[in-house]
Amino acid sequence: MSSHVIEEENHVLLCLDSRRTYLVKIEKGKTFHTHKGYIQLEELIGKPFGSIIETNSNVTFAALRPTLEDYIMKSSRKTQITYPKDAALIVLFSGINSGSRVVESGTGTGALTTALAHFVKPEGKIYTYELREEFKLNAQKNLKRANLLDYVELKSKDITCGIEERDIDSIILDLATPWLVIPHAYESLKPSGTIVSFSPTIDQVVRTTEALRDYNFTFIETIECLIRAMQISRGKTRPHTMMTGHTGYITRARKTIKNDYSQEIIEHND
Amino acid sequence: MSSHVIEEENHVLLCLDSRRTYLVKIEKGKTFHTHKGYIQLEELIGKPFGSIIETNSNVTFAALRPTLEDYIMKSSRKTQITYPKDAALIVLFSGINSGSRVVESGTGTGALTTALAHFVKPEGKIYTYELREEFKLNAQKNLKRANLLDYVELKSKDITCGIEERDIDSIILDLATPWLVIPHAYESLKPSGTIVSFSPTIDQVVRTTEALRDYNFTFIETIECLIRAMQISRGKTRPHTMMTGHTGYITRARKTIKNDYSQEIIEHND
Amino acid sequence: MSSHVIEEENHVLLCLDSRRTYLVKIEKGKTFHTHKGYIQLEELIGKPFGSIIETNSNVTFAALRPTLEDYIMKSSRKTQITYPKDAALIVLFSGINSGSRVVESGTGTGALTTALAHFVKPEGKIYTYELREEFKLNAQKNLKRANLLDYVELKSKDITCGIEERDIDSIILDLATPWLVIPHAYESLKPSGTIVSFSPTIDQVVRTTEALRDYNFTFIETIECLIRAMQISRGKTRPHTMMTGHTGYITRARKTIKNDYSQEIIEHND
Amino acid sequence: MSSHVIEEENHVLLCLDSRRTYLVKIEKGKTFHTHKGYIQLEELIGKPFGSIIETNSNVTFAALRPTLEDYIMKSSRKTQITYPKDAALIVLFSGINSGSRVVESGTGTGALTTALAHFVKPEGKIYTYELREEFKLNAQKNLKRANLLDYVELKSKDITCGIEERDIDSIILDLATPWLVIPHAYESLKPSGTIVSFSPTIDQVVRTTEALRDYNFTFIETIECLIRAMQISRGKTRPHTMMTGHTGYITRARKTIKNDYSQEIIEHND
Repeated sequence: MSSHVIEEENHVLLCLDSRRTYLVKIEKGKTFHTHKGYIQLEELIGKPFGSIIETNSNVTFAALRPTLEDYIMKSSRKTQITYPKDAALIVLFSGINSGSRVVESGTGTGALTTALAHFVKPEGKIYTYELREEFKLNAQKNLKRANLLDYVELKSKDITCGIEERDIDSIILDLATPWLVIPHAYESLKPSGTIVSFSPTIDQVVRTTEALRDYNFTFIETIECLIRAMQISRGKTRPHTMMTGHTGYITRARKTIKNDYSQEIIEHND
Repeated sequence: MSSHVIEEENHVLLCLDSRRTYLVKIEKGKTFHTHKGYIQLEELIGKPFGSIIETNSNVTFAALRPTLEDYIMKSSRKTQITYPKDAALIVLFSGINSGSRVVESGTGTGALTTALAHFVKPEGKIYTYELREEFKLNAQKNLKRANLLDYVELKSKDITCGIEERDIDSIILDLATPWLVIPHAYESLKPSGTIVSFSPTIDQVVRTTEALRDYNFTFIETIECLIRAMQISRGKTRPHTMMTGHTGYITRARKTIKNDYSQEIIEHND
Repeated sequence: MSSHVIEEENHVLLCLDSRRTYLVKIEKGKTFHTHKGYIQLEELIGKPFGSIIETNSNVTFAALRPTLEDYIMKSSRKTQITYPKDAALIVLFSGINSGSRVVESGTGTGALTTALAHFVKPEGKIYTYELREEFKLNAQKNLKRANLLDYVELKSKDITCGIEERDIDSIILDLATPWLVIPHAYESLKPSGTIVSFSPTIDQVVRTTEALRDYNFTFIETIECLIRAMQISRGKTRPHTMMTGHTGYITRARKTIKNDYSQEIIEHND
Repeated sequence: MSSHVIEEENHVLLCLDSRRTYLVKIEKGKTFHTHKGYIQLEELIGKPFGSIIETNSNVTFAALRPTLEDYIMKSSRKTQITYPKDAALIVLFSGINSGSRVVESGTGTGALTTALAHFVKPEGKIYTYELREEFKLNAQKNLKRANLLDYVELKSKDITCGIEERDIDSIILDLATPWLVIPHAYESLKPSGTIVSFSPTIDQVVRTTEALRDYNFTFIETIECLIRAMQISRGKTRPHTMMTGHTGYITRARKTIKNDYSQEIIEHND
């Protein structure tokens, strides 16, 4: 697909171990400094990705091709990122893949946008709504670095006021008031389309679930995902002491086509 | 992408609620029987996916377009399936997307193969190794139903004896002795390529991790993923009583290019 | 403390393995039937607890002295029991031990009452409130079997209408509306006394926490406890597949003495 | 039981909130300094436990009677403490209560010893083995502060070389090589007595389980306990972001009396 050889302007993940990794851009004359010595980045040009390189203090780093996960974890952050574990489940629940058309809000750091664009490229598109200009510009930078900007349309709009796109495969929400977006999501989604919402609090989940029920979505479920890292070493194997106990709940559902009866109900609720 | 309208030969997910769903093939003259009455499946032809349909007992089902997750969960099973949560994380860790070339073993039910093919289509390819003919034929059936067979090569080979493909983006292992595959994976992977191994027991993880270290893989990590489903209802919100406490551990790593020095070490280890 | 030798009228835990255990009362002429054959219970009289006994089919059972945990798990159940893991944490958070005076409601099956009485005996006392006569009689039977009835006063009263006891060390709640008990608990507890409430839903926890704040309790915390059982076998070690994902949340707090200022606040809140 | 009024030499838990608590000893002329101002501790003398006191900066603290949990969490530490959640489960699994005779090793900080003594007092006794004199002296200090030293015998012995006590109700292990203690535990325990072992690594658990099987223990089980703290606040309720992912595994079993047949087996195994 892409070249195996590191070229100027490429991004490289310099990896001392799984905890100490650095995403750098290869530029002539640039030096990468660590507490383990320095590396002249232009020395990497022409070497294959995966090469082992030594600092001037003879400490070895692997020069890896960055993966989706690296681009997520190394996002320039203006706000919380969506963690890879949550991005992975959101993508799975959304049902999307190459060619899908997806609406997302808010863009935030663009970490989740990066994951979505990664999986819908090259024919699909992500329409991502973000009101805060500062966040939008930062996300743009992150997407450009990951070579995914072509598959994303960044929109400076408030999604709680409406969604412009129609016939959308999936809508992904990570904002404070997801329940306000449900009526617009209903209009925007193609029939049988999916919606996935990520929220840190129980209260958001309850309100969103109620809105989904009101709008005749089906297969409404909420889960949370806990990742536990293991320390693997013969004779000393055990889970790590600290873990992330909570990022957020993932609620998902699928659009059904309302019949007259159900529309009546909703009108009465209003 | 695909038509919105249900056609003959299509697969449809009939959904009473998120716990009671049925994957059916639309055929003329076929009747779908449930304890809530029956549906003449040909009545669905011409209706949009997402339509609400009633059984003869006036119970409503949604007729949804099946997603990746549905195809995984409804796999015809000859052995354990890889659960969607694990498939999602394996795909994320692998770094693959549209166009990737992936080696997998064992094929098993083809649940994970389905997920991999879903994400690499249309330009990518999954080479999946399975020794047991019965499993292979069953997986083939599952992949065909999910319209993903074109992106998969099913191989009746023992992967512990070698991998034929070269320059592979990612290798995905779910077999009893993953550590025996590490030397072959090293040969098959492109530099900086990823490997992800799924194993139920700690002992498999320890042996595989040791093999990965011996073969100069880097970024070696093991995690497990716990999913907790919530019961959302204003005034009665709580996690579900029962949960899956364990499916397996996911170990992943990336290939670095061995230099002479490291090869020496491995020889001394032997 | 108690005799090592099994006597008539004693309770014995017959244990095939940790999953198949039976709490029986030793009576002359009584036969214990299992799918692994039968045991004449009077054969156990005079043998030490811990003896291995064979059924007529030569399957061996251990004849163990029942522990607190056995009495909890083998409670005759009219409603949900409090699981040992939750009972253990409730006792810890309550701060009680031998000599403590404790109020509890509702009695339910008496499983938690059993744990509380076990730890406050011989000088302490449990005052347990239960409105449903059927539950009370059943709990009485469970407590009698565990030889703990002397340390418990079973009360047929509605604790949401008031607590009669004063100068209580700890109040333990497991009922539908714990928040209604907080004002009475405040009156009943000695200063610095503890309160621990067990509730399955988030909504109960929120209302109880708010009531505790209103009544000037301090050190208010809510946790939940997840127990994961392991399958230990060299080469095949792994967590069990299924686990209990939720029993309930444990909220606990300690009484402080209200000053005038805080009483004003509460009046304004009303 | 004990006086409600704070006296000189008493220990008091000064509590700003559940995260900021301080265990202090009331002495005349002593000042307690916090970043929220200071408190003259002698002002507390004569006030009831549970009183609210103000610093010179008008910040209020509750002056609580310390509970078992406070003494555990505020242990002067020379090594890891046993966390209250684990202490609670160990006590439950051990089956002990007032009057029990218990052997423990290693003493470590004495946190678990404190919990054990709390529950066996006033008639029971804890025999605790610790080789490192520095740990023993520190534990002694912790136990004295918690008024539990009378119920504990601190022993400077290596428990892997033998246990001196006989007819013991329960043996509690938290040391590097618990499997080496199993033969001695078998001799020391009364028939049907319990053993509970706490270990951070899987490998320790496997070896200990094997030793327990060899020595004819029954009801052998291993679990781990995960505690998840909740942040309770109407409209913002959620689990805390960080949690402790692992402290250790708890393995427990009960002694059965070996018969000739089983002893043969063990000899053949050796």
